[in-house]
Amino acid sequence: MPRPLLIQKFGGTSVADPERIREVADHVARTKRRGDDVVVVVSAMGKETDELIRLAGDVSEVVPGREMDMLITAGERKAMALLCMALHEKGVAAESYTGSQAGFITDTNHTNAKIVDLRPDRLRKAIEAGRVPVVGGAQGVSTDHDVTFLGRGGSDTTAVALCHALEGDACELYTDVSGVFTADPRVVAAARRIKQVSFDEMLEMAATGCPKPATRSVEFARRWRVKLHVRSAFTWEPGTWVTEEEPSMEQAIVSAVTHDVSEAKVTVSGVPDRPGIAARLFRELADVDVNVDMIVQNVSDHGVTDISFTVPKSDLVSGTTVCERLAAEIGATGVTSDLDIARVSIVGAGMKSNPGVAATMFEVLAGNGINIEMISTSAIRTSCVVREDQIEDAVQSLHTAFGLDG
Amino acid sequence: MPRPLLIQKFGGTSVADPERIREVADHVARTKRRGDDVVVVVSAMGKETDELIRLAGDVSEVVPGREMDMLITAGERKAMALLCMALHEKGVAAESYTGSQAGFITDTNHTNAKIVDLRPDRLRKAIEAGRVPVVGGAQGVSTDHDVTFLGRGGSDTTAVALCHALEGDACELYTDVSGVFTADPRVVAAARRIKQVSFDEMLEMAATGCPKPATRSVEFARRWRVKLHVRSAFTWEPGTWVTEEEPSMEQAIVSAVTHDVSEAKVTVSGVPDRPGIAARLFRELADVDVNVDMIVQNVSDHGVTDISFTVPKSDLVSGTTVCERLAAEIGATGVTSDLDIARVSIVGAGMKSNPGVAATMFEVLAGNGINIEMISTSAIRTSCVVREDQIEDAVQSLHTAFGLDG
Amino acid sequence: MPRPLLIQKFGGTSVADPERIREVADHVARTKRRGDDVVVVVSAMGKETDELIRLAGDVSEVVPGREMDMLITAGERKAMALLCMALHEKGVAAESYTGSQAGFITDTNHTNAKIVDLRPDRLRKAIEAGRVPVVGGAQGVSTDHDVTFLGRGGSDTTAVALCHALEGDACELYTDVSGVFTADPRVVAAARRIKQVSFDEMLEMAATGCPKPATRSVEFARRWRVKLHVRSAFTWEPGTWVTEEEPSMEQAIVSAVTHDVSEAKVTVSGVPDRPGIAARLFRELADVDVNVDMIVQNVSDHGVTDISFTVPKSDLVSGTTVCERLAAEIGATGVTSDLDIARVSIVGAGMKSNPGVAATMFEVLAGNGINIEMISTSAIRTSCVVREDQIEDAVQSLHTAFGLDG
Amino acid sequence: MPRPLLIQKFGGTSVADPERIREVADHVARTKRRGDDVVVVVSAMGKETDELIRLAGDVSEVVPGREMDMLITAGERKAMALLCMALHEKGVAAESYTGSQAGFITDTNHTNAKIVDLRPDRLRKAIEAGRVPVVGGAQGVSTDHDVTFLGRGGSDTTAVALCHALEGDACELYTDVSGVFTADPRVVAAARRIKQVSFDEMLEMAATGCPKPATRSVEFARRWRVKLHVRSAFTWEPGTWVTEEEPSMEQAIVSAVTHDVSEAKVTVSGVPDRPGIAARLFRELADVDVNVDMIVQNVSDHGVTDISFTVPKSDLVSGTTVCERLAAEIGATGVTSDLDIARVSIVGAGMKSNPGVAATMFEVLAGNGINIEMISTSAIRTSCVVREDQIEDAVQSLHTAFGLDG
Repeated sequence: MPRPLLIQKFGGTSVADPERIREVADHVARTKRRGDDVVVVVSAMGKETDELIRLAGDVSEVVPGREMDMLITAGERKAMALLCMALHEKGVAAESYTGSQAGFITDTNHTNAKIVDLRPDRLRKAIEAGRVPVVGGAQGVSTDHDVTFLGRGGSDTTAVALCHALEGDACELYTDVSGVFTADPRVVAAARRIKQVSFDEMLEMAATGCPKPATRSVEFARRWRVKLHVRSAFTWEPGTWVTEEEPSMEQAIVSAVTHDVSEAKVTVSGVPDRPGIAARLFRELADVDVNVDMIVQNVSDHGVTDISFTVPKSDLVSGTTVCERLAAEIGATGVTSDLDIARVSIVGAGMKSNPGVAATMFEVLAGNGINIEMISTSAIRTSCVVREDQIEDAVQSLHTAFGLDG
Repeated sequence: MPRPLLIQKFGGTSVADPERIREVADHVARTKRRGDDVVVVVSAMGKETDELIRLAGDVSEVVPGREMDMLITAGERKAMALLCMALHEKGVAAESYTGSQAGFITDTNHTNAKIVDLRPDRLRKAIEAGRVPVVGGAQGVSTDHDVTFLGRGGSDTTAVALCHALEGDACELYTDVSGVFTADPRVVAAARRIKQVSFDEMLEMAATGCPKPATRSVEFARRWRVKLHVRSAFTWEPGTWVTEEEPSMEQAIVSAVTHDVSEAKVTVSGVPDRPGIAARLFRELADVDVNVDMIVQNVSDHGVTDISFTVPKSDLVSGTTVCERLAAEIGATGVTSDLDIARVSIVGAGMKSNPGVAATMFEVLAGNGINIEMISTSAIRTSCVVREDQIEDAVQSLHTAFGLDG
Repeated sequence: MPRPLLIQKFGGTSVADPERIREVADHVARTKRRGDDVVVVVSAMGKETDELIRLAGDVSEVVPGREMDMLITAGERKAMALLCMALHEKGVAAESYTGSQAGFITDTNHTNAKIVDLRPDRLRKAIEAGRVPVVGGAQGVSTDHDVTFLGRGGSDTTAVALCHALEGDACELYTDVSGVFTADPRVVAAARRIKQVSFDEMLEMAATGCPKPATRSVEFARRWRVKLHVRSAFTWEPGTWVTEEEPSMEQAIVSAVTHDVSEAKVTVSGVPDRPGIAARLFRELADVDVNVDMIVQNVSDHGVTDISFTVPKSDLVSGTTVCERLAAEIGATGVTSDLDIARVSIVGAGMKSNPGVAATMFEVLAGNGINIEMISTSAIRTSCVVREDQIEDAVQSLHTAFGLDG
Repeated sequence: MPRPLLIQKFGGTSVADPERIREVADHVARTKRRGDDVVVVVSAMGKETDELIRLAGDVSEVVPGREMDMLITAGERKAMALLCMALHEKGVAAESYTGSQAGFITDTNHTNAKIVDLRPDRLRKAIEAGRVPVVGGAQGVSTDHDVTFLGRGGSDTTAVALCHALEGDACELYTDVSGVFTADPRVVAAARRIKQVSFDEMLEMAATGCPKPATRSVEFARRWRVKLHVRSAFTWEPGTWVTEEEPSMEQAIVSAVTHDVSEAKVTVSGVPDRPGIAARLFRELADVDVNVDMIVQNVSDHGVTDISFTVPKSDLVSGTTVCERLAAEIGATGVTSDLDIARVSIVGAGMKSNPGVAATMFEVLAGNGINIEMISTSAIRTSCVVREDQIEDAVQSLHTAFGLDG
């Protein structure tokens, strides 16, 4: 019977200094001793990637991608070599592998390369020989034989991809938080850690403000059905499992309340109610890389309508510029923006079979004197835009109303 | 007519931070603009190599060579990528090359590899295409396809080897001092920078206390007749040329006074005057890696003799241990050691044709009340061991006596 | 009615970089906004104190205490100034205070000074004026007007002392773990975070292997009845309260299983059974700063006895040296030491009123094939020394047997 | 007879790491051993001040001056404590002094405070007791008892002020270059180090592009007649003395050729030739902190004139904005700017008694095909604005023409 295989990915905070690297090595050694095979994926130490990017900016305003990737990947090389040394000292045979040596073939899109093939033959041999491969995260070699970088957060992608390719049993993402919570504990003192959540729920939560794990890695895990375990490299206590929805899973109607204060609202007023106007607006916004999230179009009144949408605050200037130009062209009456909004969302797989959950949400908010400005829904999520200074009340009251207080 | 080709090597202090990297890029760009082709060799930034070695020591007492070389070479990768970025900004097409990409094939002796072959084909093509290759110093790839490191000071070796292989016109070693001096300016205020010195003189000077350039790189340069220019990356003024001896060179009788306080003296007394005793002593010292420098054996008296020699202070304990064991075996009467010694040397190609230089040296020292404890000579050098607290007087008086005061 | 006053202490990991400092400022601002007054105590960023101590060691083997304290306290000055800036940006009026400015008067024992007086008048005024004082941790000014440092972990002491002097409502110790656990989660996957624990239990746990909070700060808190809240600055979820024992507290018979692998065992055999022998042995061990923990003396047999005790592994050499010298003097037959031991302890306030708990512990260990080599007890703790390679089994089985699995 | 007193100031590069600090301590110890009293002034290590300013910027956009000065001065505290430790190890009794302890009283202008009083009583006592005071550069205490910072380059000011107040014999400014040169050695390979230069010449050179020493410290030295010795902390060779002009000084007609590429030219064309127009222009430029350097007004033609002036490139936008607004008001015909200019200057005390030097300069430039666009002169300096791409030719040809080639 084959031994179980775990992919253990350690982020920057988890390997920030020699003491932490030794502690991580201790944990890997313990896992190995208990009978699991392990492949380790490691990010650069602490804030080193940020520091390297800053160095590049200090040195030059022109940053050729080939050189940038040569530079950035030095961070993971350091971390993986050091972790191998620490593992040797714990008596664990370990070997470092660059992205190239681990078999990650990417396109030639420097600083944000995509994986086009993955051939982890050397890793398989190392595992069979009883060794622990330590792979530099977010790295590859391009089809042009240059060093490439998969982008920020790419170490999670490396780990999930390896778990898929090596048919691992689970992918453990070690980080500085102890898991995923029913709400942000800074806002809701009674927030609880969630033991298990489905891919779909996790995706909705990540998209509506839950900070970890990153949306992209959840997408990969969902596509390949790779079980994730989001957990702490500081307390080492069990964290949150992200898995396929199982019949046995307790179907909470609402699993979590998320919120997001990073967006602003733009409203184009008095838009002539003609076909194609909205399409043209959002096409032009897309063309200038404005990331539109929620969209609401009010009922037409006397042939004109108002279109409101939310964008990241950082995209607000380019977004309103597009709108103002277009408003002039199509004869809309005005463009206004609003920075003081926030979005609260409830997420839960049980919402599918429980009608009236959205209505309850609206009632709870109204009962707390909170006005709803925009609404959007999916099968397992309902989101409301409210005033930013009421967002903490909104999150707190929904957490209580849906029975999530611990 | 081919363009002249310069190899420019920049040490750690020269590229210690973004400001310095930009200044180095500026200098390379200026050199290129004036019509020279350039190949750059770059060390890790500032004290980064020390820092990486320290990190390894903090993480583990066991340091596998393969992982150590993966770790250390990350330093030069950073420096070379950053310098390329800075060159791009100055309008100079530049490309970074790892040791492997530059064609350095080494043996498998990790952390201190030797070059076994050098095939700089990619560099040649880049030069022909008008680009500036920026090569990571002290790196190679082993015959087993692993990353290797040439050891501390290996960047000088990389530069000299490339100058030889690419038939460069000169190898410029940029550093934080402005050249080679007639004596240590801290000791002799009137010390002057030397404009030109022969390989032989430079070797003797490096071996007797002159701190830069490193002995090993002078040996390489001498063997391959690679002209060195030791100069400052801070003032950028012309420094000291190290070249073959030319008839046109002004043959100063004494070119420089060097000194060294890093050695200790060991004396084995009452050694039976039998053949093979000395040979056995120095063989056993060599076997425990004790680096013996000067040796003096006194005239035998009544069938016994005294043998004195100098060793680095760091080798003193292992050196006296060997001597004491051997003294007991062969019936010598005692072993004493003396830490408070120093060596002063005069070096000059003109000594070959000027008898009496050594005698003058002894007279000058005697005239200043300085007792000579040991003497050794080569064709172009005479060294005396004196009391450590008299070394500054010795250097100062010889510098004046041989007409070196500026 | 006065506003509640919280002392919030942030350790090095919590303020390791600008992003973290901004997150901490956000939390302090939120606390203030909710109506609490806050005094912040801050440690040096990340590993800066270690780095400064290392710099000192790199520069000199001689480290005058006055200069060392000038050096080290630079770390907290940076952190407190930066945190004040971040608070200003969040709209919170904040002011930095050195130890001296905050009123910490210490003795003249540099690098490990003791507080002799605390006069936080300036802090009181700042609080009354609605400002947030940010105090550099572990600092003071000596009765000789020199800068002093309270030693490693001294920031906790600063916080507890301020909470006492300012009559604060609670002292929050923010760290990188989320609280205190029923066992080390690395060993026991089912370990749970403890919501509330008494000072006495916490002291026993800290003394027998629980890593945080530091024993010294628990002692201070217990003496002054300062309520501690040990919690995470990463997840911000509620952590573990350390308080006086209350009747309402659920009296678990066993609150936690702790273990410790940092000690070694020394046995002096064949000791003549005379009065004063043991006293002399432990006096001499104390004289050379050997920190003896558990002591067991076997029943005398034919007028001789064996004395065993545990010491930190780092004290083993000096401990056995003392024993060997003394054994020769008093006619003991031998001294042996054993590095491969470990100690497992159960701690719980409920043990006082539940006889038989120790017996249950011994049965559980025996039932798992684990031999007990030494035993020691207090009113609320029982500790057993076992073979080091059985310690994980011991902890796991006791955690289950005493109903602690979550 | 009192012992000579030297003030030795070491800049950031000179104390960048432990190895350098030990080398500096070695030099101070040697100076002391030779019979001089020494007061040391030390900057923060390497780029630490930059790093602290950057940290502040990363943490907050709002930077209260009081906190900024608390932050920045932490850098010098570290350096001075470490240097004291290194001196202790060399057997030199040394004591660190903050700006406040050294007696620097400043105004309350945080981040750029001015010295209002200097009472170095504690330093005097330390010197008399045979100790070496090590003073943190650029620091003081305000009349409001807060920590203050004298601004970038303030360590030179600290050193010069102490040399004046303590009646020191000379102020040695140790840096990473070996002195002041007859031209920038990057441009003129034959540039030579100047042995001695007068305060007046040095001021003109610093103002026209010579990078070190900073203009402000030369002004202080000139006002207080403090002899400066600008020299290298890397080679330790004698550098350049900046002193009062002495009759014995060889009066070179031209001492140095300086150049500056950091300025841009602005021209206001068709200005009505009325009194007060120019005054108004330069008043308004001054009001927005535009630093005007050279000014040329062409001969009026038909009642209109052109006014040209140079400003730092960084001031160009605000400068042209003012000009354009004013041009509209007064009826000038246009405003143009030119970034591609550079200024070359010749400086020499001998110019005062040698008419025709300026004419020679113009002939040399003309003879090399270099067009002169603007001219300005002082008693000992003549400057010409030329095209930026001809500046190196200009400097090179003037250096040769005035006999400066070494």
